[in-house]
Amino acid sequence: MSISFISNGEAAVRSNHAPVTGRVSSVYSEVQSSRIDHNLPLPSVLRSSFTIVDGPPSSAAGNPDEIAKLFPNLFGQPSAKLVPSDSNKVQPDKKLKIGVVLSGGQAPGGHNVISGIFDYLQDHVKSSVLYGFRGGPAGIMKCKYVELTSEYIYPYRNQGGFDMICSGRDKIETPEQFKQAEETAKKLDLDGIVVIGGDDSNTNACLLAENFRGKNLKTRVIGCPKTIDGDLKCKEVPTSFGFDTACRIYAEMIGNVMVDARSTGKYYHFVRLMGRAASHITLECALQTHPNITIIGEEVSAQKQTLKSVTDYIVDVVCKRAELGYNYGVILIPEGLIDFIPEVQQLISELNEILAHDIVDDEGLWKRKLTSQSLELFEFLPQAIQEQLMLERDPHGNVQVARIETEKMLIQMVETELEKRKNEGAYKAQFKGQSHFFGYEGRCGLPTNFDSTYCYALGYGAGALLQSGKTGLISSVGNLAAPVEEWTVGGTALTSLMDVERRHGKFKPVIKKAMVELDGAPFKKFASLRDEWAFNNRYISPGPIQFVGPASNAINHTLLLELGAEA
Amino acid sequence: MSISFISNGEAAVRSNHAPVTGRVSSVYSEVQSSRIDHNLPLPSVLRSSFTIVDGPPSSAAGNPDEIAKLFPNLFGQPSAKLVPSDSNKVQPDKKLKIGVVLSGGQAPGGHNVISGIFDYLQDHVKSSVLYGFRGGPAGIMKCKYVELTSEYIYPYRNQGGFDMICSGRDKIETPEQFKQAEETAKKLDLDGIVVIGGDDSNTNACLLAENFRGKNLKTRVIGCPKTIDGDLKCKEVPTSFGFDTACRIYAEMIGNVMVDARSTGKYYHFVRLMGRAASHITLECALQTHPNITIIGEEVSAQKQTLKSVTDYIVDVVCKRAELGYNYGVILIPEGLIDFIPEVQQLISELNEILAHDIVDDEGLWKRKLTSQSLELFEFLPQAIQEQLMLERDPHGNVQVARIETEKMLIQMVETELEKRKNEGAYKAQFKGQSHFFGYEGRCGLPTNFDSTYCYALGYGAGALLQSGKTGLISSVGNLAAPVEEWTVGGTALTSLMDVERRHGKFKPVIKKAMVELDGAPFKKFASLRDEWAFNNRYISPGPIQFVGPASNAINHTLLLELGAEA
Repeated sequence: MSISFISNGEAAVRSNHAPVTGRVSSVYSEVQSSRIDHNLPLPSVLRSSFTIVDGPPSSAAGNPDEIAKLFPNLFGQPSAKLVPSDSNKVQPDKKLKIGVVLSGGQAPGGHNVISGIFDYLQDHVKSSVLYGFRGGPAGIMKCKYVELTSEYIYPYRNQGGFDMICSGRDKIETPEQFKQAEETAKKLDLDGIVVIGGDDSNTNACLLAENFRGKNLKTRVIGCPKTIDGDLKCKEVPTSFGFDTACRIYAEMIGNVMVDARSTGKYYHFVRLMGRAASHITLECALQTHPNITIIGEEVSAQKQTLKSVTDYIVDVVCKRAELGYNYGVILIPEGLIDFIPEVQQLISELNEILAHDIVDDEGLWKRKLTSQSLELFEFLPQAIQEQLMLERDPHGNVQVARIETEKMLIQMVETELEKRKNEGAYKAQFKGQSHFFGYEGRCGLPTNFDSTYCYALGYGAGALLQSGKTGLISSVGNLAAPVEEWTVGGTALTSLMDVERRHGKFKPVIKKAMVELDGAPFKKFASLRDEWAFNNRYISPGPIQFVGPASNAINHTLLLELGAEA
Repeated sequence: MSISFISNGEAAVRSNHAPVTGRVSSVYSEVQSSRIDHNLPLPSVLRSSFTIVDGPPSSAAGNPDEIAKLFPNLFGQPSAKLVPSDSNKVQPDKKLKIGVVLSGGQAPGGHNVISGIFDYLQDHVKSSVLYGFRGGPAGIMKCKYVELTSEYIYPYRNQGGFDMICSGRDKIETPEQFKQAEETAKKLDLDGIVVIGGDDSNTNACLLAENFRGKNLKTRVIGCPKTIDGDLKCKEVPTSFGFDTACRIYAEMIGNVMVDARSTGKYYHFVRLMGRAASHITLECALQTHPNITIIGEEVSAQKQTLKSVTDYIVDVVCKRAELGYNYGVILIPEGLIDFIPEVQQLISELNEILAHDIVDDEGLWKRKLTSQSLELFEFLPQAIQEQLMLERDPHGNVQVARIETEKMLIQMVETELEKRKNEGAYKAQFKGQSHFFGYEGRCGLPTNFDSTYCYALGYGAGALLQSGKTGLISSVGNLAAPVEEWTVGGTALTSLMDVERRHGKFKPVIKKAMVELDGAPFKKFASLRDEWAFNNRYISPGPIQFVGPASNAINHTLLLELGAEA
């Protein structure tokens, strides 16, 4: 299938669609205001007439037979690519009714995806309607929405946050919930829904597309790759939006802390960074700032490291730096570190059992119930962490791993080990740790020029896919190392990203999280430089995100390296 | 006394003095590199011939008789002001030997003060020498220094941190230490020393000036006002450097968190901000971002508030917001809050006594030794804080107040109080707190254009004061709300900022910290708006510091309001 559109001949650069409102002038900072009218370039294929060309049939990331069974209507769909076309339009400019939803945690750029969809419709079928579902997927199920007009969208252009229509973490999973979504689609007479979300939300988007197709509904579903964690990506989707901005915000703070560390000369700063599942953020921040030590969860897991070996690695570097005269440093730790260490998982599951069924006596007789390996680990942990493990439990009686402040735990373990080495005469200096956690600070920043432009193209492309009648695709913008004009635009079959997981005796489709690959270019570059960074201070302070002038159009290292555009 | 200088006719705008070095290109980010060559405007009085005009004799901030006794050689010195002059130079271009020292915690802009001094010397007496004392005042005492050349200084122009010569917290206090400083001054044949520091360091600078003058040494001493806390200021010194940059970095993060809070709609973010003594940073950040609740230590102290009343204030706002449908918010807390609450100070001193002399029994009999008020407060505190108070003691056995994470403590107390109100039926929503501490992240950022320019003028002016033979003054740059050309430049008698404190039976001179004034314009503006901010969400997200384009030359609210330049 190949459908053509003709551009309405808009200028190469987008301009705003409405004047500054009272709301904006009274509650926006000067920088926020200046961003609203920031002109966004579009890939050239979106600026003139284009045709959608389908590729070959697709398969799945794993277990294609099971995926085929789970998605009988969608499995095997080809990828779609927009290519320039001189032909006249083959499809009437039929008015479209589209709904859009933000799903899951915030990522800078979400508002631009929405304005991209809106502007596509305005530019191609002006009488179309865009509904914003409020509060995430629950908004679809409860049919809670707002009609997005030019005036409504305007103040959110190039702004951070998801507050235009807010987000939510509900899932459309049960037959009843699918029924509710169906009712909403019918009630609003929707031609399409755009789901802006991470791996789970896009899996959900595909199930919704399958469901609608199975019931012969006209409503199509297109996904958009969102997550600051950077773990939703594949060949055709080179990055998820928000990752660039979040990393730059964290890297600004890390760079500042590095200058502080070097100036003061007496603190080791332990910086925990958001990213529970994958360590992309930590890796990118390391490439931007050159810390002395960086722990990458995927490497810890692959090497089956223990908490003791991670601690020893840090302590070895601290001792060697002390010999070189440096009693300061900066250490990056991914939020999810603990989840990557098998022995910690083992200890926690044993503790959960014991705490649920046994009496924890003051004399510590309960500890005999731990396996010897877990007991050893428990005794190795600092007392405060032992207490945290014993005391803080969720309503189901489980230890709350997320509450454990890994950076503080590591500081205490490093202190203890250094004390030991001091007694052995192997360390003579003084160690002082400072802890930091950078998380929420990065999720809602003003999107960088990269994220602003990328998101706008994702949304604009999603509009094109929907007008062409596509469903079950994720909006895909590629060739990102090239100038924006040369970016490619299209859609990738969501089923092609999927594998299955066995849950409660059933196969569940999942888009596998893209983890840091130890043989990928970003990790290899890091690995080749980390010793240099450890002992020769090569700190780089990226400074605050700039919207104009030097570095304002920079592209992050992970993306450039993965695209082969940086050595 | 009035001495004239003639400018060497340098261009109105400073340009760099050396090419990019290998070090710079390899370890500097693009933004850092772009800042090195950023041209700094100078006040017009520094760009052409000027004369120094003395004002009337000065007094002291308090107890002038005691200050006069402590500074027999310096007391009563007039302020000095640079004014344009057409006269020929009255002083030969005698080569100068100057030393500079960074004292205390880092503040963005310190490197620019040094480059300002250096450029003054280069522009006026090219053969002069500038020594940088390493590692703070200890560098003076131990005569540890480096000669600062054009090439040495170049990579640090407009960069954050104090790493050019590093800093330290030692004081020159004892007769032996003054003797060491004297020996260094003689050995290096110093005409002057510039001390870049906060209130303590400038007090120390004045003692050094007095000491040198008393011994008829030719070495003069000039201070420069440094502290991100913003609590070293007076009429002639409208602000301390670093305050502007640090507040903007914190405000960027707060703004991001606000957008997150509004988007997510389910968290109260408790943000603790650096500033142990005064709450200027918290107040300025509030004026920049409009949080729902802001605690100002000086107000808590003036109103003799208790921890319970602070908690109740927060809880009242949370409950009223819940009625309005808002179960999220942002709350700013100054780092030094606890120090402002008299009852907490009382409890801690009682605990210190008990922990030092008595046995703390598990049954809690020791609590009987607390006064009833302190016992009540202790029982009111969350258990984790009780434990922190009992366990964490410094080497002298004292409770470590600085270690108490006030933001977490308040979250727990608010949780407890809300639980109570829930049981009473007065609160029906769900409260979730998130804690943040922004401190080290702000001390070493790239200085804003304001701090860059202000520091450069402070340093350049300090050079002029030293060449004119002035001593015991603090470099003073004023009229800061006007364009840079119109800024005033001069020096203020350090003794005029002083009062005495009784310590160990002796009078000690101190520069009183400038606290937030409850009848000052910044606090009054805040107070007039806080209810509006509490219940109508008026969040402003300042975004990252910009060096080019919109908001890149903004001046902070505190400064503008104190100068009467903002309503």
